[in-house]
Parts: sequence; C-alpha cells; structure tokens
Amino acid sequence: MVRKPLDDFHFIDGGVTAPAGFLATGLACGIKKTGAADLALLHCPGGAAAAGLFTRNDVVAAPVTLGRERLPARGVHGVVINSGCANACTGEPGLAAAREVVAAAARVLGCVPAAVLPCSTGVIGDPLPAAKISAALPRANALLARDGGHAFATAILTTDTVAKEAAVEVALSGGTVRIGGCAKGAGMIHPNMATMLAVITTDVILTAEQAHALLTAAAAATFNRISIDGDTSTNDTLYLLASGTTGVTLASSVDRERFAAALKTVCGRLAQAIVRDGEGATKLATVHVAGGRSAEQVAKVGTAIVRSPLVKTALFGGDANWGRIVCAAGYAGAGITPESTTLRLGDLVLFEAGVPTGAGRSQAAADLMAAADIEITLDLGQGHAATTFWTCDLSYDYVRINAEYRT
Amino acid sequence: MVRKPLDDFHFIDGGVTAPAGFLATGLACGIKKTGAADLALLHCPGGAAAAGLFTRNDVVAAPVTLGRERLPARGVHGVVINSGCANACTGEPGLAAAREVVAAAARVLGCVPAAVLPCSTGVIGDPLPAAKISAALPRANALLARDGGHAFATAILTTDTVAKEAAVEVALSGGTVRIGGCAKGAGMIHPNMATMLAVITTDVILTAEQAHALLTAAAAATFNRISIDGDTSTNDTLYLLASGTTGVTLASSVDRERFAAALKTVCGRLAQAIVRDGEGATKLATVHVAGGRSAEQVAKVGTAIVRSPLVKTALFGGDANWGRIVCAAGYAGAGITPESTTLRLGDLVLFEAGVPTGAGRSQAAADLMAAADIEITLDLGQGHAATTFWTCDLSYDYVRINAEYRT
Repeated sequence: MVRKPLDDFHFIDGGVTAPAGFLATGLACGIKKTGAADLALLHCPGGAAAAGLFTRNDVVAAPVTLGRERLPARGVHGVVINSGCANACTGEPGLAAAREVVAAAARVLGCVPAAVLPCSTGVIGDPLPAAKISAALPRANALLARDGGHAFATAILTTDTVAKEAAVEVALSGGTVRIGGCAKGAGMIHPNMATMLAVITTDVILTAEQAHALLTAAAAATFNRISIDGDTSTNDTLYLLASGTTGVTLASSVDRERFAAALKTVCGRLAQAIVRDGEGATKLATVHVAGGRSAEQVAKVGTAIVRSPLVKTALFGGDANWGRIVCAAGYAGAGITPESTTLRLGDLVLFEAGVPTGAGRSQAAADLMAAADIEITLDLGQGHAATTFWTCDLSYDYVRINAEYRT
Repeated sequence: MVRKPLDDFHFIDGGVTAPAGFLATGLACGIKKTGAADLALLHCPGGAAAAGLFTRNDVVAAPVTLGRERLPARGVHGVVINSGCANACTGEPGLAAAREVVAAAARVLGCVPAAVLPCSTGVIGDPLPAAKISAALPRANALLARDGGHAFATAILTTDTVAKEAAVEVALSGGTVRIGGCAKGAGMIHPNMATMLAVITTDVILTAEQAHALLTAAAAATFNRISIDGDTSTNDTLYLLASGTTGVTLASSVDRERFAAALKTVCGRLAQAIVRDGEGATKLATVHVAGGRSAEQVAKVGTAIVRSPLVKTALFGGDANWGRIVCAAGYAGAGITPESTTLRLGDLVLFEAGVPTGAGRSQAAADLMAAADIEITLDLGQGHAATTFWTCDLSYDYVRINAEYRT
C-alpha cells in the first residue's frame, strides 16, 4: 500500500466524476439476461488528453484494437463500455460491431468517432449486440450527470460483487486538482500492462504524452501487481482522461511527484479492490518480495507466489503452510537461494537461513492466517530490489462461479 | 496417447517388480498419522545402471540433492522412499537425516550408501523422522519380494487415491525384456524435468548414459507434459534402473527405437494416471497443440492452457467455454495469430479463421464436455510443430484437499 502524508493529497468521495469536466451514467440496455446495468457512458464535453494501457495477450478484443489505434491523443470526448459480452475472438464482424457502437456514441455526444474510446467485458466469443447498445445510447446521453460516476462504475461490472471507486484531491502549486477512477475485475485477472477495465479521470492539465507516462508508471506498481487467477484477459484496458478543467498544470517537479503519487494511490486502491472482490475471494494477501538482485527477479518471484493455487488454497484454509510459498519462489526461475532467504508472516519469521524456525506450527501463525488481511514478506537476501503484489485466496466459490459462468 | 503396434510390445500386469532382477516392498513406519504405508524399498541385488531426472525448482529437497550427486551411475542397489514428509526446506539437518536413511538402507541391503537412491514426498518444512525410518528398514528388508511392486507403489502415495503402475513386455532382437514403473502425484504437479515421484525398472542391459538419454527423451513427451495445478514441486524425481538380468542389449537401431517407444508408453501411462488421479479431478483433458512454428512455441501454448484455472473450472463445469482456451493461448507469450488458429473439441470445430463457428453453443459441444475424457486440439496454423499435454479439471475437492492438507 502506498502511504503518503495527508498534506500532499487526501481521499474524497466519488469516482470518475469527482474531477471537474466529466459527466457519466450507467443503465441496462439488454445484454445481461438478468436485466442488470450493462452500458456505461462517460462524457468530457471540453475534450480530454487521454492515454491507454492494454492487455499484452496475443488475442485481443475488438475494442482493444480500436482503443490502441487511438491513443495517446488529445480531444477525447467519451468512453463507452458494455458489460456482459467481451467482443473478443469475434474477428471482423466484432470489429465492425465495435465501430458501430463508437459511431453511435459519437453521434449522441456530438463528436467524431475517433474521439470515443470503447471497452467491452463479459463472455468471450459471443457476438456483440451492437444494435441494442446503439438503441440505448440516446437514453444514456439524456441521463449523463455530474454525479453519475457510481452508475458508471456499477454498469461495467460482471461477476464483481461491489462497484470499485476511488478519488483524491491533490494540492499543487497552481491550485487543487482531483483524480478519480473506477475499475472492474473479479475473474481472468492477471493483468499484463493493465487490468480488466479501469477508467481514471483528472481535471489537471496534461498532454497526452504526460498522461501516458504517468499512467504507465502508476500501473506498473498497482494493476500490474495483482493476480486473481493467473489468467491475463483479452480485454484488459486502463484509460486515463485529463479534462484540464481546473486550468492547473504540473508546473514543477514537486507537482509532478505529488500528482504521480496521488495517481498511483488511486490506481492502488482500485487494484486492491479488484483483488478483495476476486471471484470467491475471502482474503486479501499482500506479498512483499524484497532483497532481490533486480526488479525482474522480484517480479518473477512475486508472480509465481500470487499465481500458485497451492498458496491460494492454503490462504483459504487459513493454514500457514509456508513451504508452498518458498516452493513457488523456487520454481519462478529466478535463481533464489534458500540459505539466504527469509520468510515472514506479518512480523513472524517462519523460515530463515535455509531452515524452518518452527513458528509455522505456532498459534501465532494460525492467528495471522485466520485474518482477512494477510501480509507475507519474502526477503531473498541477494540485493536491494523490492516489489509488492496483491492476491486473494482460492475458494470453493471461485470454482462454483467459473464452472457455472456461461451456463 | 502413444500408440504402437502390438507386435512391438504389449502391456502386462505389475509395476516396478515386473522386470527381472528387482524385489520391493512397502509398509508403515509411523510417519503418517493415519497409520497408512509410508516407507517403500526397492532392491536390485545384482546392481543396476541408473539415471535420474529431478525438479528444476531452485529449492530442492534433501533427497534430490543426494540423488543428483549420484546419477547417472552403475551398481545401484536400492531405492528408499518415504511419504508423509518431503524433507524440503530443511537445510543441513535435512541433508543429515537423508544421509542417515540412505546409510540405514545400505546396511540392510548389504551395499555402500552411494548405491542407494532416496526420495521423499509430503509436507514441506517438517523435519524428517529418520529414526523411525531407520528402525523400520530391517523389517522392510525381510519383506522384500518379487511380487512386492504393488506394496511399493502404495507406500509412496500421499493425497493420491489409487496406486499408479504400468508394465510392458518388449520383443527385441536378442530376446524379450520388460519395463515396469510406478508413480505418485495428486498435487503440486507441474513437472519441470520429472514428476513428483516415479520409479521405472527394466531388465534390459543399459549403460548409465543410455539410461539417462532414454529417460530424458521419454520424460520430455510424458511427465513434462502434464499439469495438475501449475506448481512445480521441490521433490520431483524420476528414476530409471536397468538390472540387465535378461542379458539382452539394445543391439540395433530397431531395438533402440522399440525400447524407447515402450519406455515412453510406460511413462505416458503413469503420467496420465497421475493427472486422472489429480487432487479433486473428475476429468482428464488431452490438449493437442499443433501447427506451431517451433517446439518451444507449442510447449508455451500448451503450458498456458493446462495451467489456466478458468479452462480447468470450465472443464469441471462441463461448459464449452472455449474462449478461455484461446485466451490462455493468447497470453502464453508465444505469438499466436487468431486469424490462423483453429480450435476443435473432439472433432467439432469451435473457432476458425478468427471467428466462432457457433458450435460452441451446440448440444454436441455440451455432450463432449460432459464426458470424463475430453480432447482439445488447438492448431496455430503457423507451421508443423506439435505436442500433447494432459491436465485435469479444477473442482471443489481440489480446494477442499488443499485448504485442509496440513491441518
């Protein structure tokens, strides 16, 4: 968790409409059989500088193809997102459907199609019902509101159980600016560049290139450090839109640092909220990997640990079966050395200098594993590189949700 | 599944004691709280040429360290295996305990300690109760029998529900020889070089170097092509012992090919038996990856598919949610191209030339997914490399077994 002094920034209520210059809404257009909200629309009437980060999967959804072509860019006026259908593995017909939706959104928002960014999330391989979305967009446009962020955050959900929003206010030399965002996750979460879907807004003035650089740095330490099931989706998309409505710029290096830290905090909150609401999750585990020779090494080790089904079922069972953590680190292909490795659960040392301390069988370890928030630190004892990952446990409900998902 | 004409070789009953020149047994020595068999002893009175393949995990159990030092070698007289304790992450005391067990086994078998190969399997991080094992070894020695292979195969099990054995008889130019083997698996199965534990015996004459080359080739297409949970263990060990009792050698290239094919078949049977008995498994999926540019590419794609929790929960749910298979292939980092990719379930084409065929929602697809044996073929349409993987589904019972394992 990123911690910064409160005088730099503080959390406020709201999500994507917390910053000035944005309107949003969410509603049901008939894609989800349940009748739940499945269409989300964000509008930036003054135009925004925007950046996007996308999945590195070789197989990408149609909206990812369109979004990648467009960004980074100035003059972005809207984001249109549907849930309930991923529009992935749908070939040329899928691209045509995504273009149809973007064109329909551009018509209601009064901008060119190139100024609208699309996203889809849901089942892979089903055709996108573009006509349903296009038919609902005039209604969505009429519902756009300055307090519509929560409706927007709700309409992008799939198997998520709660909307995920975060917003902060940051004091810069030229004045106060805001950053807000929302995300959805739940399954197929092992982001590689961005997460399933997240939209971040701000009212500071940024160039498209600044937006891209800031977003890339923030995602590296947040969205790219979480895993629910190790499956990198075809649709991962993270957008940042800067309306510039406040007239405030990042005038100094202090401003840039403050804004970057605040952006990372918003991204971190959303990334952790995704893990906490992971499919079937009952626990959030924070996994610190320290003492590495390189950033690549600690990333490899952390990835192996947060992907391990054996580590994740031990978390679910509340069993301090720490050998599984050391084993996962060992098969990461990162050249760890057990004799220099230390494993801690909270502040309790379980394994040190190649041998168990015995604490793994203690009541103290059992108590720490029974908590909803579990902190694990693996110090490789080889250098000074460090990073932090977040994951959830693997429960019966993960299996239930995913065995039954499409049916 | 490897298929060879019956005139080359045929299956026979038995396991490690099917070939001439081997005695074995299994019994309870008190490691497992349940009182189940947990000590297995194999004896080759005439000495065997032996080879071993071991986990590539950076963190290796003490018996792996000893076994690696010894092989390939001639004059191997025995294998001693305990279940219920992995003797991994146990440092110098663990190595000393493994040496104590090997020395005790050498005493009862009347050979030097260097002629005994050790294995351990069970919980990581607990100290090995070497005294219990040493105390039971004289009794084990008294029980050694020509028909003791099944008792040996039973005593090496942990969460496995059935013993896994296979044996074949091969007609070579110099006479008939046999290959037998047994294996254990169940969890922490994503072998990288060998699987959890498997011992193969034969009565053909081999040099230690021949044994190593034959074993490496057979494992590459069998034990290294299975995954239950993506977790590569600290203890993976695969031994091959050749007693030479028949006096038959691999005299010609035809003999070598026949023997290699038969060995691969025994390894393949055992590897598939491990997957079929995977923790909580209800289904066996055979995943063919074809049309690749290179062996490395098809291996990457296959690994991603058989590791994917989303693919495996869809198998459990009997849901032909094929988009998850294409998605996993896409994030394998192998450069697949959806527009050239074809996905088949049995003979049913679900995805072709970048678009769904519609068959994924058919009754025929549902029927194929409801079967206990599921065959999936992903043709990348880029070249001629191909390989086959085996995996099982991810069920409630996998979670139950691993949430409760240590407690």
